[in-house]
Amino acid sequence: MPDTQQTTLNAALPNPRQDVQDLDKLERKLFALNYALGEILTFGPVIDPPKATPERAEAMAVLDGERQALLAAPATGALLDRLQQNEAILDVTHRAQLKILKRDRASLVNVPPELQEEFTRLTTESDDVWRRAKAADDWASFEPYLDRIVDLMVRMAQAKDPSKDPYDVWLDEYEHGTDRAFYDGFFSQVKECVVPLLADCMASRHKPSAKPVQGNFDEARQWQLARDIMDLEGVDTDALWIGKTEHPFTGGPGIGFTVIASHVYPSNLLSNVFSMLHEGGHVLYEQNVDPAYRFTSLKGGTSSGMHEAQSRFFENYVGRSRAFADPMCRLLAKHFPGQLGRMTAYQLFMAENCAEPCLIRCDADELTYPLHIIVRYEIEQLLFSGEAKAADVPGLWAEKYRQYLGLGVPNYTDGALQDTHWADGSFGYFPTYALGNAFGAQFRDAMIAQGVDFEGACASGDLAPIRTWLRDNIWHWGRAKDSDELIQAACGEPFDPSHYTRYLVEKFSSIYGL
Amino acid sequence: MPDTQQTTLNAALPNPRQDVQDLDKLERKLFALNYALGEILTFGPVIDPPKATPERAEAMAVLDGERQALLAAPATGALLDRLQQNEAILDVTHRAQLKILKRDRASLVNVPPELQEEFTRLTTESDDVWRRAKAADDWASFEPYLDRIVDLMVRMAQAKDPSKDPYDVWLDEYEHGTDRAFYDGFFSQVKECVVPLLADCMASRHKPSAKPVQGNFDEARQWQLARDIMDLEGVDTDALWIGKTEHPFTGGPGIGFTVIASHVYPSNLLSNVFSMLHEGGHVLYEQNVDPAYRFTSLKGGTSSGMHEAQSRFFENYVGRSRAFADPMCRLLAKHFPGQLGRMTAYQLFMAENCAEPCLIRCDADELTYPLHIIVRYEIEQLLFSGEAKAADVPGLWAEKYRQYLGLGVPNYTDGALQDTHWADGSFGYFPTYALGNAFGAQFRDAMIAQGVDFEGACASGDLAPIRTWLRDNIWHWGRAKDSDELIQAACGEPFDPSHYTRYLVEKFSSIYGL
Repeated sequence: MPDTQQTTLNAALPNPRQDVQDLDKLERKLFALNYALGEILTFGPVIDPPKATPERAEAMAVLDGERQALLAAPATGALLDRLQQNEAILDVTHRAQLKILKRDRASLVNVPPELQEEFTRLTTESDDVWRRAKAADDWASFEPYLDRIVDLMVRMAQAKDPSKDPYDVWLDEYEHGTDRAFYDGFFSQVKECVVPLLADCMASRHKPSAKPVQGNFDEARQWQLARDIMDLEGVDTDALWIGKTEHPFTGGPGIGFTVIASHVYPSNLLSNVFSMLHEGGHVLYEQNVDPAYRFTSLKGGTSSGMHEAQSRFFENYVGRSRAFADPMCRLLAKHFPGQLGRMTAYQLFMAENCAEPCLIRCDADELTYPLHIIVRYEIEQLLFSGEAKAADVPGLWAEKYRQYLGLGVPNYTDGALQDTHWADGSFGYFPTYALGNAFGAQFRDAMIAQGVDFEGACASGDLAPIRTWLRDNIWHWGRAKDSDELIQAACGEPFDPSHYTRYLVEKFSSIYGL
Repeated sequence: MPDTQQTTLNAALPNPRQDVQDLDKLERKLFALNYALGEILTFGPVIDPPKATPERAEAMAVLDGERQALLAAPATGALLDRLQQNEAILDVTHRAQLKILKRDRASLVNVPPELQEEFTRLTTESDDVWRRAKAADDWASFEPYLDRIVDLMVRMAQAKDPSKDPYDVWLDEYEHGTDRAFYDGFFSQVKECVVPLLADCMASRHKPSAKPVQGNFDEARQWQLARDIMDLEGVDTDALWIGKTEHPFTGGPGIGFTVIASHVYPSNLLSNVFSMLHEGGHVLYEQNVDPAYRFTSLKGGTSSGMHEAQSRFFENYVGRSRAFADPMCRLLAKHFPGQLGRMTAYQLFMAENCAEPCLIRCDADELTYPLHIIVRYEIEQLLFSGEAKAADVPGLWAEKYRQYLGLGVPNYTDGALQDTHWADGSFGYFPTYALGNAFGAQFRDAMIAQGVDFEGACASGDLAPIRTWLRDNIWHWGRAKDSDELIQAACGEPFDPSHYTRYLVEKFSSIYGL
């Protein structure tokens, strides 16, 4: 009897130990809902038959609603506040969980559930519409969805933080601490470097040739090559499933269950090579988060910029390096001995680094790539400010591709329909690709300064020293540290885009004999 | 002001309209949880990489726990009771939902959540262990799981209904209204027919030959054949995904998203043909449930027996008929012109109907099939009564395969490890295969009596008249009607296994010239 009374009395008093148990319970539920959403969302465009869409949309809306209701619940807010007041008793992992949960909660607590649900339904449907529209070169069917998505995302942003510009809200969502002022500064530095450098390359008489890797390459063998690229990159294939889809992406519900969905084109072998290296970088990040974070909100990458830093690190700094052309050349010769058996690593390196304006972002070389991003960044701002509507997008697209890349846009499929992001409601995401590139250049310089034999690792095909540096400094931490903390700790200085611009100037000056 | 007061007053009074809305809300949540569980469970053995298991198990345990907590909640019980009292105001669909929800709730409300969670975790893990054990012919690694699963299922059954025998509880779970007394009667009638009939067939000098379909058949072409079989059967391939797995099964999260996972063997073409016809029957049932039931507890088949009735209907009554050998023979010749181009439909029919005892249930002919089920039914009873332990199973298996089928069992892979069911915790399921066979024979007789040109449909390859009868009488109703109601309404009489035994006697007497 005294025991019961004791318990009853305690129930009214602060009970930090119970709070920690409740935190673990909350995390376990969030893990399960995120696992389900992760699996359903990942397989949607890869596996689901056409008639699955209405049921998938309904299930995702309900599950996502549950996830949000759980985070937004007043009881959750009170729990997190109590834990904050007793932070001293929390271990370092629980403290990091608390920080992330508070941030995740803040980003949705003021968004009416109806808006959030509408967003889930609309983007599930529009992703489907976009896939068909892209295949059929049919802008008209997608256009109304684009207006609806922008309108909805403006309303959501206003609910999240009425004091901020709606586009800034979304930029911050993908990369904590960023806004248009930040990116305007970053992109002007990038333009200042890239625009004249590209002009010099175009004017140069020493142009690399893509010919050695041109041809028609068997699709089945390309898929075998894709698997071998995963091994070469060091991805854990016991925790990976590879599927086929229209637009390459990485997904998957957990640390032990990552998914790459990709695409091979018979006439474009390098597209496969760089898509796999890119997605493999995302997978390495996901797979190498501290296993202790597996069932918590700390799993996964800390931001979109940091995620793209990993993918574009392996795609570019490793994948398009002179040194890595050695093992890659051997691998290509193994799968296509008749077609590529006599290509040299130097020829491959040159073919990989033709700075040639093209229509497709995913196939762009390192130098022109940020220009594709700038086009999208500028159009996104016009849509969010209301200065443009979806109907204006094809015209804006044509205008900006002519301005930045000197190209005419012959159709929608290779124009504004090429990417899945807008259909998914991922406005504000594109800039993180360019930012990730710049993060990666800084990491490369830092690891070399700290003694990693970067070129040796690439040339040997054993990337373990590079992976170890990235794992210890970045991957391991999951969401426990923000990008700025990770960069400061890993590089001993804050983010500095001059590593990136310097790298571009050195590399392309050398290749183009400037 | 008066309005507010009114609302407050009403809140304490019965509010049947609000109850119906709450019912819809409950169903929507259950739909979403079942959709997630359905997708995760279905893809587990088909797609998930090895390292996914711990996270999948954790997610499934939490989500299934949520589903059960939702059903078991006292508020749900009170809601269902109130709706029952006001049943007069419910439409026919809501009434059926109420019946099913009450039954689903009753089957779990007394099971402690820890037991249920342990079951989910254990069977997720043991399914994984079983797959490896089967591949390695390694009984020892699976054996402890079998004991743990039986022990847990006995405890769960005792919690569900302490007044009943534990095995009876599980038989009822898979086929509402059945128990050992029912199945003992049914199986003794089956044995009385099959055992002497098989002996006569074995002794006959007129034996059909399997030779015309023997050979080595290319796997890739067999997968193309598998897709064509789906079209021939009339499955909606816009709502189907086909994957590869060790043990064929049908799953999937929704009416618009069904999944067949299957297996092809180069040396056994008919295994592919009958696996696909079988799983296709399950898929037809799932896809043709009234679309109005899509987001409710009424979707899916009404029982395991009724589900197997559909799969084995297309596998046997259609698939192994003389008439259907015509279109199937043409299809086989199309895919394997060199090997099967000269085979006649009659030869195919005879090859499909060799009553030849074999070790593998899934590959068994129609006549010996129920004997495989009787072996499992008898062993399951011994395990549940405690008269046998997992360690005794290989011995019992060998003894009973000798007794019923006259065969020695050379290894575990083709013995007690061949099926996935025990690893999944599906004790009590096997008997429903044989029962489904018997249901199907009665349906066949009924549709013919009602004017369906069964042979004509099979011979033409256009199965629409057969599908229409099954859709209107069975599939359409989902879980809204129980097996006994469906049979009575469709056939104008209660379940009668003599349709099945008569069919076997007629068919095999004719083939074996008895």
